[in-house]
Parts: sequence; C-alpha cells; structure tokens
Amino acid sequence: MLVLVTYDVNTESSNGKKRLRHVAKKCVDYGQRVQNSVFECSVMPDQYVKLKNDLKNIIDLERDSLRFYLLGKNWENRVETLGKDESYNPDKDVFIL
Amino acid sequence: MLVLVTYDVNTESSNGKKRLRHVAKKCVDYGQRVQNSVFECSVMPDQYVKLKNDLKNIIDLERDSLRFYLLGKNWENRVETLGKDESYNPDKDVFIL
Repeated sequence: MLVLVTYDVNTESSNGKKRLRHVAKKCVDYGQRVQNSVFECSVMPDQYVKLKNDLKNIIDLERDSLRFYLLGKNWENRVETLGKDESYNPDKDVFIL
Repeated sequence: MLVLVTYDVNTESSNGKKRLRHVAKKCVDYGQRVQNSVFECSVMPDQYVKLKNDLKNIIDLERDSLRFYLLGKNWENRVETLGKDESYNPDKDVFIL
C-alpha cells in the first residue's frame, strides 16, 4: 500500500535540525522523496507500523508534526501533479542499475 | 471529498517568494493548513477543478511542484498523525464564532 508521509520539524534549535535529517533519512529507507518534506512510501502493513514507530522515536512530539495518509493499493488514481515532477511509480517503473 | 495539497515552490528569487505566498493564500480559500506546505481541502469536484486551475496559473511549471492526493469521502480512516496536531475535522467539528 502507498502511505504518504509529510512532516514539519521545528528546526529552531540544532537538535531540531538533527531530527529533521533523521526523519528524512528514515523515510528514504521506505520510499521516495517527492517534495522537500513529503515522501511516498510503498509499504506492507507491518512495515508501516515499524516506520511509524521509528519516526515516533525520532521526533519531538511537542514540537514536530508528522502526518500519514494511507492511499491504499489503488493509489494511482488518487495522485495528480502539476509542475515539476521527478517521481517514479514504484509498482511499474523499471530501473536498470 | 478531501484533497490533500502539498507544494514545493522554488523561492530562490523574489518572484518565487511571491508565488509561495500566492499558493498558500489560494489554498487557504479551500481548506486548512495542517503543515507548512500541506493543506487539507474539503471540496466538491467542481471546486477541485477550479483550485487546480487557479494554482496552475500561479506556479512556475518548470520550477515548482504541486501534488494533489484525493482522499475521497471516507478520508477519516486514511489520516494518522504523530506529534503536534492543531487540525480540525471539517466534517465534524463545530465552531461558535
């Protein structure tokens, strides 16, 4: 299923900047960055639970905001873009590395 | 239906900063800001078409990125949050002004 992760991390302190880097790094493990603070993560339900738990342990619950939008399996019809779009479709696009 | 609007506007130039303000201002007309560059908009299909069109006329299509996630009518089960959350439920919460 596709889960959209969006975040606002309060970077007023150096700790905040560190949290921001950690959140981004963790999200990279699960999906693709489509905007500065927006990740599309293609995950199984157990991976989603782990992702949430990992992120919960990184953020400051009083200062930072994390939102998860569950787009399900048939997510392709739920996403539209305008302007710059360098994202790929994890279910379809093929990469030769 | 609930439509999530996320954006990255390139603010390297003063024009970019102006576009960013315009995008945010336009989104405010349609929904609530839940994070810095994330809006949840409760719209009818025709309003959604207008919103997209309005935003298309504001952004620089080569530099800025707009993404729309259609969460549908039964969106409540699709949204989870962690940390700071000052959003309201447009379908349920009552405000006395």
